[in-house]
Amino acid sequence: MSTITREQLTEQLHWRYATKQFDPQRKISPADWAALEEALVLTPSSFGLQPWKFVVVTDPALREKLVPASWGQPQVAQASHLVVFTRRTNFTEADVEAHVRRISAVRGATAEALAGYLNMMINTLFKGRDAAARTHWADLQIYIALGNFLTSAALLGIDACPMEGIEPAKYDEILGLSALGLSAVVVATAGYRAATDKYAALKKVRFEPKDVIIRM
Amino acid sequence: MSTITREQLTEQLHWRYATKQFDPQRKISPADWAALEEALVLTPSSFGLQPWKFVVVTDPALREKLVPASWGQPQVAQASHLVVFTRRTNFTEADVEAHVRRISAVRGATAEALAGYLNMMINTLFKGRDAAARTHWADLQIYIALGNFLTSAALLGIDACPMEGIEPAKYDEILGLSALGLSAVVVATAGYRAATDKYAALKKVRFEPKDVIIRM
Repeated sequence: MSTITREQLTEQLHWRYATKQFDPQRKISPADWAALEEALVLTPSSFGLQPWKFVVVTDPALREKLVPASWGQPQVAQASHLVVFTRRTNFTEADVEAHVRRISAVRGATAEALAGYLNMMINTLFKGRDAAARTHWADLQIYIALGNFLTSAALLGIDACPMEGIEPAKYDEILGLSALGLSAVVVATAGYRAATDKYAALKKVRFEPKDVIIRM
Repeated sequence: MSTITREQLTEQLHWRYATKQFDPQRKISPADWAALEEALVLTPSSFGLQPWKFVVVTDPALREKLVPASWGQPQVAQASHLVVFTRRTNFTEADVEAHVRRISAVRGATAEALAGYLNMMINTLFKGRDAAARTHWADLQIYIALGNFLTSAALLGIDACPMEGIEPAKYDEILGLSALGLSAVVVATAGYRAATDKYAALKKVRFEPKDVIIRM
């Protein structure tokens, strides 16, 4: 156990904000970035199916090309790192079967012991849902990864900006994602705030706890 | 700044797992729970709109009633705490206008200065999307809160179990959520793992980093 204090948690969550202007000179260290990638990989998901890939774009020319596909937001090019959270578009029953084989290999359970689990997953995801509903399901899982990433970055003292304001089809084209069986869902930039980012000093706008927490 | 180390982050994310059996005797302390509620309230969301409420159910009789609405999973009754992540079902343009008034009150900006922002939000959420797409959008935000909650709990050394396996309509009925303009989306139980939970000892099943992290 290597737990943190309550004060660390809440102080860092107050400290974070959706950073609009990053210092283009300050880079996230390789060790810190490796920890954030590890956090992404460890993200929990429905049935553990991980219907995602995380595309880390460092090439400056690609980053510049993505700015117009991101409502012109310059942090896409200026932040130290850019992660494109992508959905696996060709997610089929075969992926669920592969997941069961992975469980079996990692945990030593037999295929027979996992047959019921396999059936439950197939029923839930493929019998009960159409393709659009599966896409929705996958995107929800990807947003768990986004939430995990933003909190993890804040705790390490790394600034980030979650960005829904992108054109996924243009991202897919610019990054060649379709050929990889992927589609862009949401983006996060990460790095360090510029001293000139006026958003850093603005108060958070949140509901009062009494307005969003209901006790029963 | 009250940052944590990389080792704290990755150790605690390895430590966490979807806890199936909680120790019904061990309760999360009020101070720890307050920190987790604060983390929920601070969750970032699209445009800061927070289309959610978090329903914390402590009444044992209600908790028992929710078990059959949760595929029979006993942790719904046994865990120290249960949070139902709910969507505000009656989210309208008036909510966006109220958000702009809140921004104005908190940050001192004039309504005129925020008019463009208001229009952009209305266009994005109400002109460009139908009700189903707005529901999807709200659910995505709620999963950011879920991801934030799971990571926050893990870092405090508190066990949790995210649960999609619920019947939202039954939750709405049992908890009277519809009358509150809310609908259940997803659930998390939190508390402390029972010594007998065999899942605690199982290895995590995750893709290899090379299989889910793509560099460009």
